[in-house]
Amino acid sequence: MQPLKYDFSDLEGAASVRLAEIVDRIGETYRDGFGVNHLDGVNLPRRAEIVEITEKLLEVIFPGFDGRRQGHKEMIAHDVAELLKEIYSELFDQMCRAIRYSRKVRSCEECGTNEAVFALLDALPQIRETVKLDVEAAYAGDPAATSYDEIILSYPGIKAITIQRMAHVLYHQGVPFIPRMMTEHAHSQTGIDIHPGAHLGRGVFIDHGTGVVIGETAVIGDNVRIYQGVTLGAGNFPKDACGMLIKGNKRHPTIGNNVTIYSGASVLGDITIGDNSVIGGNVWLTESLPPGTKITSRPPENRLKFANDRA
Amino acid sequence: MQPLKYDFSDLEGAASVRLAEIVDRIGETYRDGFGVNHLDGVNLPRRAEIVEITEKLLEVIFPGFDGRRQGHKEMIAHDVAELLKEIYSELFDQMCRAIRYSRKVRSCEECGTNEAVFALLDALPQIRETVKLDVEAAYAGDPAATSYDEIILSYPGIKAITIQRMAHVLYHQGVPFIPRMMTEHAHSQTGIDIHPGAHLGRGVFIDHGTGVVIGETAVIGDNVRIYQGVTLGAGNFPKDACGMLIKGNKRHPTIGNNVTIYSGASVLGDITIGDNSVIGGNVWLTESLPPGTKITSRPPENRLKFANDRA
Amino acid sequence: MQPLKYDFSDLEGAASVRLAEIVDRIGETYRDGFGVNHLDGVNLPRRAEIVEITEKLLEVIFPGFDGRRQGHKEMIAHDVAELLKEIYSELFDQMCRAIRYSRKVRSCEECGTNEAVFALLDALPQIRETVKLDVEAAYAGDPAATSYDEIILSYPGIKAITIQRMAHVLYHQGVPFIPRMMTEHAHSQTGIDIHPGAHLGRGVFIDHGTGVVIGETAVIGDNVRIYQGVTLGAGNFPKDACGMLIKGNKRHPTIGNNVTIYSGASVLGDITIGDNSVIGGNVWLTESLPPGTKITSRPPENRLKFANDRA
Repeated sequence: MQPLKYDFSDLEGAASVRLAEIVDRIGETYRDGFGVNHLDGVNLPRRAEIVEITEKLLEVIFPGFDGRRQGHKEMIAHDVAELLKEIYSELFDQMCRAIRYSRKVRSCEECGTNEAVFALLDALPQIRETVKLDVEAAYAGDPAATSYDEIILSYPGIKAITIQRMAHVLYHQGVPFIPRMMTEHAHSQTGIDIHPGAHLGRGVFIDHGTGVVIGETAVIGDNVRIYQGVTLGAGNFPKDACGMLIKGNKRHPTIGNNVTIYSGASVLGDITIGDNSVIGGNVWLTESLPPGTKITSRPPENRLKFANDRA
Repeated sequence: MQPLKYDFSDLEGAASVRLAEIVDRIGETYRDGFGVNHLDGVNLPRRAEIVEITEKLLEVIFPGFDGRRQGHKEMIAHDVAELLKEIYSELFDQMCRAIRYSRKVRSCEECGTNEAVFALLDALPQIRETVKLDVEAAYAGDPAATSYDEIILSYPGIKAITIQRMAHVLYHQGVPFIPRMMTEHAHSQTGIDIHPGAHLGRGVFIDHGTGVVIGETAVIGDNVRIYQGVTLGAGNFPKDACGMLIKGNKRHPTIGNNVTIYSGASVLGDITIGDNSVIGGNVWLTESLPPGTKITSRPPENRLKFANDRA
Repeated sequence: MQPLKYDFSDLEGAASVRLAEIVDRIGETYRDGFGVNHLDGVNLPRRAEIVEITEKLLEVIFPGFDGRRQGHKEMIAHDVAELLKEIYSELFDQMCRAIRYSRKVRSCEECGTNEAVFALLDALPQIRETVKLDVEAAYAGDPAATSYDEIILSYPGIKAITIQRMAHVLYHQGVPFIPRMMTEHAHSQTGIDIHPGAHLGRGVFIDHGTGVVIGETAVIGDNVRIYQGVTLGAGNFPKDACGMLIKGNKRHPTIGNNVTIYSGASVLGDITIGDNSVIGGNVWLTESLPPGTKITSRPPENRLKFANDRA
């Protein structure tokens, strides 16, 4: 037997030989580099760090709500300064990795990371103002909501939308990987899957939210209300002459202002829903609607059967 | 240039000036107090601490399952005493914050926090007995379940229901914020969104559960089975003369005993489903049903197309 | 008053008496052993540790992506050796608990734990190769996907499928509890609920994924695409003469190769969907389909109402 390459000295002999053999076989599968992300050279951002940065950004938007930082009132500006400094450094590192990896540039001077980071940080005050309108829209739209504070503390739609608004800035800066990692963190926490490319207007309210899917090229107007299980998705996927999907074209709906979309509805394709429309629960819609339309599904005929001769 | 107010000394000069300017602009948006939660004075509970307390309460209900505490058999009573002491102190602090903030009282002597905390702690033995019936209902209702232990270890419905049963006690004590924060923690972990106001009977089983929504004024009887994607929701939202939503009225369904509701069904409005009824998958229901009713949707007509001349 | 059995000396007197009384009442409910999991003797695995092991296994499949370990390129084999050693020890401990508890054997020599652990570890290189095909299938199937790396970094379907592929090995080893705990961790993170018993072919893509349910006896072919909200479920649950559910029979669908199932579709019962079929959104299907079938639901008739005399 060859001497072991790995330190399994605290394991029993047979197990250590088998483990060493498995490590070698796993190592073979790493040779093509597929799905291997190492620290050095040019490589990808890391998930746990993007999650950490995203949570810190939420803390800047709603300071003190998360509970991990406990600031006194007059110290909040200094706390946020400390937080922003951390965000700046950590986001710079991760974005540098993302951009260098993707654009094949060698140094961060070439890659424009600094300006992309500042694009997001500069946008934070405006995002905070916009999110206030989202909170107000939730209060106006939900009979169970008792206060703005309750909404900030416990409504998943606010978390998902706030993260998407921040990711959207990085998406428009052309930052690879990170915007989607941010919205997938929101998806994992809330069940709400909004692609960072989607454009959201002001005062958007997503209630309950589990199962909501909003695609990359969707455009949503102001004062739009969306319930659990709604899909704003692609209709069909055109392919090129080689049979490969065409990427990047507009393929999701445009939703006007003051539109309500009830639970389970699917709105599919590059169609336009006019202002002030109402789309009922479970509606399956693949055609545009003029402004002021109310559309409901006639529910599939229900068949009643009465058991035990009770009828 | 004025001297910097914040300590960005480890950053490069241009970046520190830009960061300081952003901190000031963010500080401006904090001036109205919207979404700012500081440590001192009268202020809100904190999310991470409510999550921590909720997980400790689950540990009291099912000791040792989570794995964060490793007690020996004869030590379990002492372990739970230790745990309960922590819960008492932490919950007291957070509830004091919640109640003082909401009721505008100055001190915890006035605010009744102590009695509200004990209302929950006193209820824990009864909740544990009730949750045992939920576990038995899951075993009786799922062919894939191999033991009660497996259900406790891995069924999200048990987690969501147990948390809701605890939050429901605090809801009836009139505790603001915290009950909903507890059920949103469950929602985030399980995809099951049960409002703390909903009344659940004994032996409730929610299978798979992702996308389930149960509204604030829903009432659910004994031995009820609910599958993924079921909504027990509001029908419409009456508004007052000013166009504002009327809050607090009964607007969700009442479900009788021994009712089964299959996946994707929506039961909406203040209607009553009689005992021993069965509601089929994807049914959309807005009217009451007498006891013993079985209702299924005639599925929308399926159109078959056979490709490759196979038909 | 009897002297207190528990150390509540830092609490005020009345509270400590009440707490002690509650601890005693909770202790009463532990007497039947239901839902009590202690450290010593024969007992169950622990959730937090299974989650930890599952995340480490993912790190072996895609090293460096999570971000918790930061290895240099030439060190990756040594890092993975270290990781595998930890996984081996921790999984051995938890599986020993699971198997001894379930099979009522006394020692780990009798219980076959070691071979069951190595069954999973031995399978890891092959699982890694299979998961590469899943990543390629996602890239080929989603117009929004920009690279394989992005898919590994941020697509929940990859996480859920990879965990299920590992849990499936343990399921076939007859390991109790742990496989389902692993897939429930995936369910909690992704909203995708795949039972460890389900058989997945090569190149499976689950997009968005929230609300997907795939049952224990489902069989899925190669190059299958599944969207959010799809259920591959049981049709009905046969009971034995005593009215108890019959467990273990084949009760979920078999899906052929190159099948696509769009969002919200329910495919129920032990039916067979032939190769190259397409099942449209929201289809409710309880009968087998021959190869090459395309089936869509005629959507329930939409009733348009135009408000404000706009029509």
